[in-house]
Amino acid sequence: MNAIRIDGRSIAEALRARVARDVALLQAQCNVTPGLAVVLVGKDPASSVYVTTKARQAQAVGFKSQQILLPSTVGEAELLDAIEELNVDDTIDGILVQLPLPEHIDRLRVLETINPAKDVDGFHPYNIGRLAAGRPALAPCTPLGVVHLIKTVVSDLNGLDVVVIGRSNIVGKPLAILLGDAGCTVTGAQLQTRNLPDLCRRADVVVAAAGCAELVRGDWLKRGAIVIDVGINRAIDSTGIAKIVGDVAFNEASNRASYITPVPGGVGPMTVAYLLENTVTAAVSRRGLSLDMSTGSAEFGHPAFESEILQPDLQRVT
Amino acid sequence: MNAIRIDGRSIAEALRARVARDVALLQAQCNVTPGLAVVLVGKDPASSVYVTTKARQAQAVGFKSQQILLPSTVGEAELLDAIEELNVDDTIDGILVQLPLPEHIDRLRVLETINPAKDVDGFHPYNIGRLAAGRPALAPCTPLGVVHLIKTVVSDLNGLDVVVIGRSNIVGKPLAILLGDAGCTVTGAQLQTRNLPDLCRRADVVVAAAGCAELVRGDWLKRGAIVIDVGINRAIDSTGIAKIVGDVAFNEASNRASYITPVPGGVGPMTVAYLLENTVTAAVSRRGLSLDMSTGSAEFGHPAFESEILQPDLQRVT
Repeated sequence: MNAIRIDGRSIAEALRARVARDVALLQAQCNVTPGLAVVLVGKDPASSVYVTTKARQAQAVGFKSQQILLPSTVGEAELLDAIEELNVDDTIDGILVQLPLPEHIDRLRVLETINPAKDVDGFHPYNIGRLAAGRPALAPCTPLGVVHLIKTVVSDLNGLDVVVIGRSNIVGKPLAILLGDAGCTVTGAQLQTRNLPDLCRRADVVVAAAGCAELVRGDWLKRGAIVIDVGINRAIDSTGIAKIVGDVAFNEASNRASYITPVPGGVGPMTVAYLLENTVTAAVSRRGLSLDMSTGSAEFGHPAFESEILQPDLQRVT
Repeated sequence: MNAIRIDGRSIAEALRARVARDVALLQAQCNVTPGLAVVLVGKDPASSVYVTTKARQAQAVGFKSQQILLPSTVGEAELLDAIEELNVDDTIDGILVQLPLPEHIDRLRVLETINPAKDVDGFHPYNIGRLAAGRPALAPCTPLGVVHLIKTVVSDLNGLDVVVIGRSNIVGKPLAILLGDAGCTVTGAQLQTRNLPDLCRRADVVVAAAGCAELVRGDWLKRGAIVIDVGINRAIDSTGIAKIVGDVAFNEASNRASYITPVPGGVGPMTVAYLLENTVTAAVSRRGLSLDMSTGSAEFGHPAFESEILQPDLQRVT
């Protein structure tokens, strides 16, 4: 059995095209251009790449894009002041502080300073709390992307047995909430979980978000399972070449699964696409707007649940 | 096999005695008397009983206890004003609005108006969000009570397979978070979950919080399982007598389980005891106090996780 590959790149591209359409409508109907501000502290190379990608994609869909670059020596108070300025800047709808932050800065304090209505990363306790209570909220981008990818291959999530490996605040925990709200029976597992392979073998969907290279083996999977791989790990292959691998042993898993996301090109592109989607949601919501949008994607809420899901571009794994 | 009954009444009594000791310390060391305000709208008989119980227990541990009784016709704005007054009243540390509220009042808006630092029910999105992020928070009382009861019979929760039946915002969802933080592998199930009996049979601990009389049968349980019954349902027995039953068929379950909570007298008393505990936590935390308390129960955080767990009073089911 060869799993069908879920092509996150093309699904994310379609989502970005929808966001661009929404932005055009917002400009035409309401004279509003969504603004996204990304704050980067220091010059970590990976962070710089992420920030550049986000800014480029924000511009491509028609946003006002702003970058705030601060030295790694910046004081916490100064960083908080910069965020407060963005909080009251009416041209800015989304504020994202690129993580990680230098050790002398209290990350959680920084995240709690962001105006929840502009918290497009969905990390503010207010948004997490509203999400957990099933209320409209800005939800974290990666979990939204994962749900979107699953929905491209299963029309109704209700009743699915899902194992989520990893309990991070950014992925595992909010994802369990979203999937539970969609009617799934969700088991939250971790690296340390007893009988993890057995647990996975009972699941219709396995989401691997543990940050452990090729943790999930082929024989951990029920035949026909859907596999979503959130991991991004550096590894050295048998010929000594460095490469990026996920939390799933891709080739083995492809022989058991019905659908599988590759790494790279699976979940990653969806995360940035949902950052853009969340920014439109924030722009619409904080102005109390209601637009005539056939896709409905600019409603405040969990966009992935309430709007049309784009058809995936599926490719056979070769 | 006859399960050992976990006696929530005596465990709650011991917890209340500890709270009373903490209150005495707070008064002696800091001249602080914790204050709990309970707001009741209308005259629902069950709600009136709950409010009276809470007020009586609050007084018994040495709190200042305040009741705000409003007619069922009260306007939402007037109710919000009453809450705002309590928010800024420095003699009040805990604010509880008894649910349910009349239909013309937006329950969620009311709960979000309560100052999160005084939200001793733990229902404010800010507290739910901090709880979900693993940060110090005022956590909901029933989940805290359930974790406490489990800890009276298992010293280390790490690695336990737990099934939680029911996904309410008040019990099931926050309980899954607390148990996951304690290292359990938690599966969130619902009445509609496929193969619910099979799912339960794999669990070390089954928590029933679905609001469905005697849902969990004896043959749903692994031998030696721990059963925590959160349900409170009215039922008519075979002789036509009305009685209160839980979500678990108690007699059948007692023949399979190692430990089981009765209804009434199991989880119920723990909920009110944790309301008192949360009020002390709020009184200490919002003043930035640090007390010399051997029990440590007045630390801001999840009291059940960070403080000594009282020894249970166990009784053989007869």
